[in-house]
Amino acid sequence: MTEARGDIQTLIDLMARLPGLGPRSARRAVLHLIKKRGPLMAPLAAAMADVASNARECLTCGNVGTTDLCAICASPKRATGEICVVEDVADLWAMERAGVFRGRYHVLGGTLSALDAVGPEDLRIPRLLDRLKDEAVIEVILALGATVEGQTTAHYIADRIEGRGVAVTSLAQGVPVGGELDYLDDGTITAALKARKAF
Amino acid sequence: MTEARGDIQTLIDLMARLPGLGPRSARRAVLHLIKKRGPLMAPLAAAMADVASNARECLTCGNVGTTDLCAICASPKRATGEICVVEDVADLWAMERAGVFRGRYHVLGGTLSALDAVGPEDLRIPRLLDRLKDEAVIEVILALGATVEGQTTAHYIADRIEGRGVAVTSLAQGVPVGGELDYLDDGTITAALKARKAF
Ligand SMILES: [Zn+2]
Ligand SMILES: [Zn+2]
Repeated sequence: MTEARGDIQTLIDLMARLPGLGPRSARRAVLHLIKKRGPLMAPLAAAMADVASNARECLTCGNVGTTDLCAICASPKRATGEICVVEDVADLWAMERAGVFRGRYHVLGGTLSALDAVGPEDLRIPRLLDRLKDEAVIEVILALGATVEGQTTAHYIADRIEGRGVAVTSLAQGVPVGGELDYLDDGTITAALKARKAF
Repeated sequence: MTEARGDIQTLIDLMARLPGLGPRSARRAVLHLIKKRGPLMAPLAAAMADVASNARECLTCGNVGTTDLCAICASPKRATGEICVVEDVADLWAMERAGVFRGRYHVLGGTLSALDAVGPEDLRIPRLLDRLKDEAVIEVILALGATVEGQTTAHYIADRIEGRGVAVTSLAQGVPVGGELDYLDDGTITAALKARKAF
């Protein structure tokens, strides 16, 4: 194949390492990019180089962005007293698409798992407890998946917060059993947030 | 969403324009890239920028590469008397993966289509006829899809070549009716090439 492609083969091999793309779809994508190298490939390469150099996790909440404090944590328009706890950034994005929550987030970076040896210190749980004091938080909304791991993690966090004078609620109506937030439509997330109940 | 993502959103929007990726898989791919920004995202951005600046169509055969004469046309190891005519570069790559053909290619860039108003001058057909003389070609292998358009195009080319003392053959055994080359396994392509017959 080297004879046929060279640098192009290198690009195909790297593209094939993206989730959801195999060798065949990587080849198709690269041919498409080469056809659209002015309007699509050059801007995509530039955007990717930009994010590769600048992307970082927010020091406060764990969201990804291109600054030490993410755009949500930095925004004066977002309420400071409410923190919505999510498993990962994809879930934060799903909440934002629903557009109904106007507080701030805390991205755990996973769930507790005895099997995978993931403990509280492997997640962003200690940082969450610090934030409760620093930001005068009045409500923590646990927006974790309705999976065994998600609910184990939710209970652990609720236990740690108990007695600090902070209300702990969780998404309720509409989150299907075994479902993950990132797969839900905006309406379901909105309904679940509006019907949240004391944990 | 701007508040939540900014530059990252720009990258997601561009990724979502790749064939086979929708908004959801583009988001997943970008989160994966951000997690692997050192080992994957930075090299991918560099490879993409490189191909975006250097990719071009071979002036002789229409294959894509990073030089005016593609690696196959430039290779002294490839036989000059045989030209394999394919619809597009994906088909050329499929032939190369099979690894059985050691001549050179000619990429038409599509098929004749009355419906889409694609005539011979819109494809690389005049260039093919020039090559027959310039390169002392003795055989043209028509490796076009077993579709109506592919076969119409094959017949048109065979008619134009007739009387020039050049053998015209076509892939035979193994190409399924309605099938496109790029979807076939290597063995099928090898069998079809070996059993090629006079057109
Ligand atoms: Zn943040
Ligand atoms: Zn060439």
